[in-house]
Amino acid sequence: MRTEELLSLKTKQPDGAVKKLSKEKWDHVAKPIDGLGIMEDVISSIASMKGKVSFSLDKKALIIMCADNGVVDEGVTQTDKKVTLDVATLMGKRKSSVGVMTAHYPLDIFTYDIGMDCDEAPEGVIDKKVKRGTEDFLKAPAMSEKECLEAIYAGIEAVKGCCDKDYGIIATGEMGIGNTTTSTALMCGLLGLEPEEYVGKGSGLTDKALEQKKKVIKEGLRIHGFEKRQSIITDKKEVLRSLGCLGGLDIAGLAGVFMGGALYGIPVVIDGFISAVAALVAESLVPGCREYLVASHMGRERGMEPVLSALSLKPVISADLALGEGTGAVMLFPMLDMAISLYLNGTTFEDTVIEKYERFEK
Amino acid sequence: MRTEELLSLKTKQPDGAVKKLSKEKWDHVAKPIDGLGIMEDVISSIASMKGKVSFSLDKKALIIMCADNGVVDEGVTQTDKKVTLDVATLMGKRKSSVGVMTAHYPLDIFTYDIGMDCDEAPEGVIDKKVKRGTEDFLKAPAMSEKECLEAIYAGIEAVKGCCDKDYGIIATGEMGIGNTTTSTALMCGLLGLEPEEYVGKGSGLTDKALEQKKKVIKEGLRIHGFEKRQSIITDKKEVLRSLGCLGGLDIAGLAGVFMGGALYGIPVVIDGFISAVAALVAESLVPGCREYLVASHMGRERGMEPVLSALSLKPVISADLALGEGTGAVMLFPMLDMAISLYLNGTTFEDTVIEKYERFEK
Repeated sequence: MRTEELLSLKTKQPDGAVKKLSKEKWDHVAKPIDGLGIMEDVISSIASMKGKVSFSLDKKALIIMCADNGVVDEGVTQTDKKVTLDVATLMGKRKSSVGVMTAHYPLDIFTYDIGMDCDEAPEGVIDKKVKRGTEDFLKAPAMSEKECLEAIYAGIEAVKGCCDKDYGIIATGEMGIGNTTTSTALMCGLLGLEPEEYVGKGSGLTDKALEQKKKVIKEGLRIHGFEKRQSIITDKKEVLRSLGCLGGLDIAGLAGVFMGGALYGIPVVIDGFISAVAALVAESLVPGCREYLVASHMGRERGMEPVLSALSLKPVISADLALGEGTGAVMLFPMLDMAISLYLNGTTFEDTVIEKYERFEK
Repeated sequence: MRTEELLSLKTKQPDGAVKKLSKEKWDHVAKPIDGLGIMEDVISSIASMKGKVSFSLDKKALIIMCADNGVVDEGVTQTDKKVTLDVATLMGKRKSSVGVMTAHYPLDIFTYDIGMDCDEAPEGVIDKKVKRGTEDFLKAPAMSEKECLEAIYAGIEAVKGCCDKDYGIIATGEMGIGNTTTSTALMCGLLGLEPEEYVGKGSGLTDKALEQKKKVIKEGLRIHGFEKRQSIITDKKEVLRSLGCLGGLDIAGLAGVFMGGALYGIPVVIDGFISAVAALVAESLVPGCREYLVASHMGRERGMEPVLSALSLKPVISADLALGEGTGAVMLFPMLDMAISLYLNGTTFEDTVIEKYERFEK
């Protein structure tokens, strides 16, 4: 994919009329108006994405992007970058956290090596390696524009594959030691925010290491010219440059997944902070992606709030999750199942003697 | 049950040593420390309630208490009180909202008529009717102390029944037109809060009807001597009197369910506001009940925050739910299933080449 191709991608338009009909359908279910709150709105948004009032989400996928980050050399993490491959190896056997959590839940997991620092992808992991980990962003841009585009394209293609196999919804996940560092840097660059307030402890850091992480992120922003912009970057070429300079291949790959959702009309669920930053990148490069996003949880990283605000999304889970792999996104799935069950099969006021609740203006 | 019996009930003590071991077990799972956030803490608390590190929650129950409220005569609701029976009739057939939502989820639902204004309980609903609806609290105490105790006892017995049948966890739900009015009045009385800020629109009200609801609640508090206390009621006899004067039989029954959890060592999940107020009543009458509570969601009623704060509980779902029937509590169940699956079967650091994450002090 060339830059011009990326920047001229056109997303599908969700069907506003279907959303309206869907909300009316909700109001016929024998329950208080808006009883299921945000869940009702999520279901109606998904209906508009699919362009039909009644739909099934029975077939669900999780796409996980795994990549290594050169910036780990700067001492911003507790563990060695080798852990990326170790966990991806477990993922290939469905023995990592998200695989075990969903052992009894109908979900297909597609794990991608989009840029791990290893010779070959472990068994069960799809090989779409762009390069063996990014460069240390204090020493060079993390990746070239061409590499960025290749990772994004892999994400789009992953969704196309799911679309061909009739998956109704896709959750996103990632694995990449150092990716709260890359995501925080990228978010601060894109939204014009000061890192000081948003750098978190990721998978655990001493106070000293946290200071080092802050220093590295600030320095990265300065070196690549994204320091103190104090405004949201709207120029698409600058967005792409920020992704190339600071981002990880996992973020680029997931940005492609979010774009794929909007191109093929499939809802894509954001997991935690890294995934949310990838969604922000997708929307910034290809406006309209936002319409196919579903937020799951608020996560523990402090950057979640500004990113989800920028995307006007409200998550429904607030459990201080910070595991990654898509673990928070998949927790939303059974909640959606329950809500859809009521939406599709709920007793309606017409089926009963109960008088319909009236909707009063707020 | 006599008052002295109620006030001398002794709850089981959760096992602190088990909780510690459970937290250690979490830290051996190959994932970042505290990766599942509050979910990890909930699982470890449940372990301590059960007194064993490894446990199953496969068998789950939902107890729903249905009752009518005399205060509905004061025009505090959109619908007629008849809707209580209509919905309970659907519940008996598993066709109400919570029944349809969980049609494909393994859950047994026990619906109780604890005080509906009808001749006999509908099919599939357990008859524990204390009286045909409470009195209008503007005209008399809602119920006598004896009636309160009878409803509480029915709740305790409901849990004993579940315990005998080996249920591992119980969710709570309610149905009772007018019960956000009774709950708000009771909460304001118990916590010494001004109703003005906490009266919500329940299942939907015009602005005018909302003003009427506020007026009725304030007047109820004044008539029964619970106005402007501005402090938490700690005297147990006063707590019982406030329940009798302002409460509903659904709230009293659910308070009994929460007490039952603490007497028989079973975790009980709070649903929304009404259920949360019942949990507060339980803890106020029988200290120690708190240890067996699990919060599910924040709900839309503004009173949720002070009630959950008073109980030191953090819910993990924040979806603006306001349906009742236990719909929010049951949404927590599949999230717990996923967390337990990881807790019990997760790959440990010892199983892998991955070095264990270190826990740093915060």
